Amino acid sequence: MICAGETSCHRMPVRVYFEDTDAGGIVYYANYLRYAERARTELLRELGFENSAIMAQKGVALAVRRVRAEYLKPARLDDALCVETRVLAVHGATIDMAQVVRRDDEDLVQMCLTLACMNAAGRPVRLPAEVRNEMVRIADGGPED
Amino acid sequence: MICAGETSCHRMPVRVYFEDTDAGGIVYYANYLRYAERARTELLRELGFENSAIMAQKGVALAVRRVRAEYLKPARLDDALCVETRVLAVHGATIDMAQVVRRDDEDLVQMCLTLACMNAAGRPVRLPAEVRNEMVRIADGGPED
Amino acid sequence: MICAGETSCHRMPVRVYFEDTDAGGIVYYANYLRYAERARTELLRELGFENSAIMAQKGVALAVRRVRAEYLKPARLDDALCVETRVLAVHGATIDMAQVVRRDDEDLVQMCLTLACMNAAGRPVRLPAEVRNEMVRIADGGPED
Amino acid sequence: MICAGETSCHRMPVRVYFEDTDAGGIVYYANYLRYAERARTELLRELGFENSAIMAQKGVALAVRRVRAEYLKPARLDDALCVETRVLAVHGATIDMAQVVRRDDEDLVQMCLTLACMNAAGRPVRLPAEVRNEMVRIADGGPED
Repeated sequence: MICAGETSCHRMPVRVYFEDTDAGGIVYYANYLRYAERARTELLRELGFENSAIMAQKGVALAVRRVRAEYLKPARLDDALCVETRVLAVHGATIDMAQVVRRDDEDLVQMCLTLACMNAAGRPVRLPAEVRNEMVRIADGGPED
Repeated sequence: MICAGETSCHRMPVRVYFEDTDAGGIVYYANYLRYAERARTELLRELGFENSAIMAQKGVALAVRRVRAEYLKPARLDDALCVETRVLAVHGATIDMAQVVRRDDEDLVQMCLTLACMNAAGRPVRLPAEVRNEMVRIADGGPED
Repeated sequence: MICAGETSCHRMPVRVYFEDTDAGGIVYYANYLRYAERARTELLRELGFENSAIMAQKGVALAVRRVRAEYLKPARLDDALCVETRVLAVHGATIDMAQVVRRDDEDLVQMCLTLACMNAAGRPVRLPAEVRNEMVRIADGGPED
Repeated sequence: MICAGETSCHRMPVRVYFEDTDAGGIVYYANYLRYAERARTELLRELGFENSAIMAQKGVALAVRRVRAEYLKPARLDDALCVETRVLAVHGATIDMAQVVRRDDEDLVQMCLTLACMNAAGRPVRLPAEVRNEMVRIADGGPED
């Protein structure tokens, strides 16, 4: 769900299952990155794009170039979480996003990511114009002019 | 969602994300078991039970004792799947279930499982009466009398 | 390591890490299938075949068509396990295998699998002759004549 | 293997299996964090500590507090990788590490992490003296005085 506002923000619910947890009784640290990727995929889908279609039709994919994650509090089995995604900036071949995994009104994990548009050979290429335009539209502060 | 009918059946939607697929372009075979466990967890939740609460309050957990899976057709990135779960039989300490991962009206993976109730020491114990009663209620053919 | 003997058996060590376990403190049930796939991959590699090369050169892949797993005892964090793999039978387009995940001399999980050779379109096709010959050679009871 | 030198560096080989890859044909971005955690576990083990024993005997665990990852080049199915781990700094309750996933002499993913020592309630606590001493010993530049 993309909510309008000063800063457009996409929200996706996530439930914690056994598969996500580890013997410490909490969600395994790498699995928050799986949650984050699901949320980015759903954000794209709501904008009208599917990863599989982008790969098949445009020959490109959005790959993570850089991620920074701060683990503030652990999530636990059966928790009902929410992943909030914001587009911070859109460049020619990359997109900057902020993602937060929350439980109620608590931030559990805060992430900053840079996604890069890559062709099938793994070379950086410009974002498809349609994707770029939609990302600019929902970016913080809206379209730059 | 548990639908009444000759055979009670729980249905849960599942979306295929990058994390679920492998370099063959299809869902990795072990990941259908993750989907199936999510569906069993949601079935329990709809009956009023959470895995974490059962462990904390009753000191028991439902562990998979046996699984058989037939892989008929592969699921792919972005597929919208459905996991159908049926309770086949409820015994003193075990439950038999059938689960199918479907895409539209096609069966992709068919599973049969036996779940066993285990205490914290990993010993088989009788199902908690509340869980057992609810499972009997939704079992195929309904309660035995 | 493939050991000769009445029944040829491939052995591969596996260590249990946090990523493999769940909030129940034991290895998550689907993850034994990941261990099994690693072992099958190493068996193939010792016979001179790599999955990526088979896909690139022959246009085929070995997909799991059916698996049955019996969960006897749980593995835990830091356990040193061994996956034992035996080729039971080799057919025109499929291979039957038995795999056991062991800790010392205890069987934890016993699996039976049927692998099917598939082309890029997901259609069953005959095994490449080289792969088939090597599989027959190490199959239980050795080559049939 | 911990190699002496100006900067002590732990090296662990990792093989890429189907489970690690995604439909893009490359290793899924979250899975490099799994590789990194395996390497940190093996580093601890070589120093004489097991995660399960630390949890059982000291009631503490080393949790990731912060991670930054730069994805430079993708790893692919069947790649033979190496995870290099360096201890950068040891504080009262946290440890800073650098980890690199390499293929031959190419850096694929570079990570910086801060690990925090947590008790069972999830509160930060001081590192056990034995663990701290060993970490200081192998830290870059050796023990501070």
